[in-house]
Amino acid sequence: MSAANAFYAQSGGVTAVINASACGVIETARKHRDRIANVYAGRNGIIGALTEDMIDTNKESARTIRGLMTTPGGAFGSARYKLRSLEENRAEYERLIEVFRAHNISYFFYNGGNDSMDTAHKVSQISKQMGFPVTCLGIPKTVDNDLPVTDTCPGFGSVAKYVAVSTREAALDVQSMSKTSTKVFVLEVMGRHAGWIAAAGGLAGNGPADAPHIILFPEVAFDESAFLKRVRDCVRDYDYCVIVVSEGARYANGTFLAEAGTRDAFGHAQLGGVAPVVAGMVRDKLGFKYHYAVADYLQRSARHIASAVDVEQAYAVGKAAVQFALQGKTSVMPVIKRLSDQPYRWRIESAPLARIANKEKMLPRRFISKDGFGITAAARRYLQPLIKGEDYPKYINGLPDYVALRGVAVRPRLKTRFVI
Amino acid sequence: MSAANAFYAQSGGVTAVINASACGVIETARKHRDRIANVYAGRNGIIGALTEDMIDTNKESARTIRGLMTTPGGAFGSARYKLRSLEENRAEYERLIEVFRAHNISYFFYNGGNDSMDTAHKVSQISKQMGFPVTCLGIPKTVDNDLPVTDTCPGFGSVAKYVAVSTREAALDVQSMSKTSTKVFVLEVMGRHAGWIAAAGGLAGNGPADAPHIILFPEVAFDESAFLKRVRDCVRDYDYCVIVVSEGARYANGTFLAEAGTRDAFGHAQLGGVAPVVAGMVRDKLGFKYHYAVADYLQRSARHIASAVDVEQAYAVGKAAVQFALQGKTSVMPVIKRLSDQPYRWRIESAPLARIANKEKMLPRRFISKDGFGITAAARRYLQPLIKGEDYPKYINGLPDYVALRGVAVRPRLKTRFVI
Repeated sequence: MSAANAFYAQSGGVTAVINASACGVIETARKHRDRIANVYAGRNGIIGALTEDMIDTNKESARTIRGLMTTPGGAFGSARYKLRSLEENRAEYERLIEVFRAHNISYFFYNGGNDSMDTAHKVSQISKQMGFPVTCLGIPKTVDNDLPVTDTCPGFGSVAKYVAVSTREAALDVQSMSKTSTKVFVLEVMGRHAGWIAAAGGLAGNGPADAPHIILFPEVAFDESAFLKRVRDCVRDYDYCVIVVSEGARYANGTFLAEAGTRDAFGHAQLGGVAPVVAGMVRDKLGFKYHYAVADYLQRSARHIASAVDVEQAYAVGKAAVQFALQGKTSVMPVIKRLSDQPYRWRIESAPLARIANKEKMLPRRFISKDGFGITAAARRYLQPLIKGEDYPKYINGLPDYVALRGVAVRPRLKTRFVI
Repeated sequence: MSAANAFYAQSGGVTAVINASACGVIETARKHRDRIANVYAGRNGIIGALTEDMIDTNKESARTIRGLMTTPGGAFGSARYKLRSLEENRAEYERLIEVFRAHNISYFFYNGGNDSMDTAHKVSQISKQMGFPVTCLGIPKTVDNDLPVTDTCPGFGSVAKYVAVSTREAALDVQSMSKTSTKVFVLEVMGRHAGWIAAAGGLAGNGPADAPHIILFPEVAFDESAFLKRVRDCVRDYDYCVIVVSEGARYANGTFLAEAGTRDAFGHAQLGGVAPVVAGMVRDKLGFKYHYAVADYLQRSARHIASAVDVEQAYAVGKAAVQFALQGKTSVMPVIKRLSDQPYRWRIESAPLARIANKEKMLPRRFISKDGFGITAAARRYLQPLIKGEDYPKYINGLPDYVALRGVAVRPRLKTRFVI
């Protein structure tokens, strides 16, 4: 069997460890040059395939590829670009296969979330129909932790660690100043649909006196009076109150708290997100001095405080995807199977993309405490192992030494251009 | 000479390394038990002295005191509480001396910023007048880096490192998504009066194409059209734009950008701080997709990414304060004297509090690039050494193992109570 090429692309929101998965793919492929001659990476994700704009990873040194292990963001560029259904836009799928055929690409590795798994699944089917069967593998990635079947999604453990560490640190600050200054601190975290990241903030403390004193989940309808009572009680009992709020926190009618805010002079919804809305309630109704932080991209790019378990799993799913492909598996995704909580043991298995595509794994209600403001022991058992271990990048002059690719383009072979 | 006691207090906003200064004070005092029998720490800063609420540090183990080296926040509690002038409130000063006399306290170590140096200076003078001379030492601490005479202020180097690292990381995230998603990212940092912290963000990049592309300093009057033009140019040339904005950024007339925002339904100024205001301009005038982060307390409590140089200096000033006191120096503060930039060499000297109290060191104009949006080579030479080295805390189960004090109270000796 002569060697073919592989195509790899990053999709959707990037993470602190998605490049570790890329490293797993490329390093593993390089060990099988007899089967995989080269890995072409899509510049800006799948758009790079459609526009025939691919990065020749054979032009990157082993040292650079290894450096991906500790570099956040998406080194090849990612894209928020969902292929439509075959009925809606057959031309996109045909173009993909055309590009794959022109570059002798027989393997498609797609590193993303639910949507991307759907795309990988469709490409597998269509390539067969079109007489150029491509081996299609999904590689899980999402800070939202919402892919089914797999125990966790690479990217989540590092955000979870960042949020837990930051909550613990900020809490010490607020606590020490509470006598004469800030009483209430609000930290806004990601997770529009599910409260996985907010739940991770709960790891910062161990008892009711420890921060965070209140977590606001998207899964629990926001009850302003219960919330304000809890804040007041915390300040009475502990002299301060730390709140972790998910950007997806919402009222019973489904309105996001962030949307329920005020409008500016132009009539635009206030830009402040959910943290200032929550802080505003505390100010207006309770009169406490407050501060708030919005972690935003800092949380998902914080490679400097990545979880070692997360980094290891990110690499493992990339590596396994190549191994599965070489074993002839297609339309599958490597998943993490938890074998035990403590010590945390896991292994990689494969699961059909059809079981994963377009499905969301929500935070189970049993992970949220009865009062809706905290996490349960079950949640801790699940979350704790995922933030374990530190995997520090190398530093030069006080700053992480993140790699940049040469990014040499593969020479286009098609005469036609494709407009996105 | 029989041993007396020392009083130590933390003042004003806390930092990631103020406890390292406390460690320097206590460990050094413990080496001189013949002179300093015990260090009493004010609970909640100077308020603890006024209310006779002090923590007996002899009741803390050597291990706990060492643990202060890696614990952020103010372990003894801090306070925003400025003693008024002697004319305005003589009673406070008299009360202080009364408490010091009752507890045989001959040494006063005050760990804070400009205000605190003023207080320490006054206490020194008044104690002499009242016939109970107390040896008064200031210990520098402030993330704002605005104390004169000293090369830098412990606390600043770690915030600087946090901001530089976070900017670099978030920039990689934004850059990788810019083709189809966020084009402009805004990071709000502290520094209401001076742009030292914002300047540190400039260390994240090395050339015009590198983030941050724009820094908004309090020192440079905000010019909306010049700013928007620069954002547009960056997006045209680099496909994305990263902005670091100081909370103190202001218009030529002195109005803070943060205050110039919109008002909510109650007529309150919008709570969003400066980042959403800047992001709002980008949206309204240029239409780019944006994201913003507000680092707030996360930046000054981020012990997990503290600068090793900063930690070392924080300890050194605490240690030197005790040594100076034992040498009979009073009304002085240990300052850091820079001997060379590269390699960074420094030593501790002492400077009279009178030269430091109530004075602010502003960011020099020569540290800001001509166009007002970046830092100069001189700024880099100054800033670079301050973020050097990592000094990681110990982790347990994926979280930093920060110490908590037993906090045993010294038994009060006065019959009178003092109401703050």
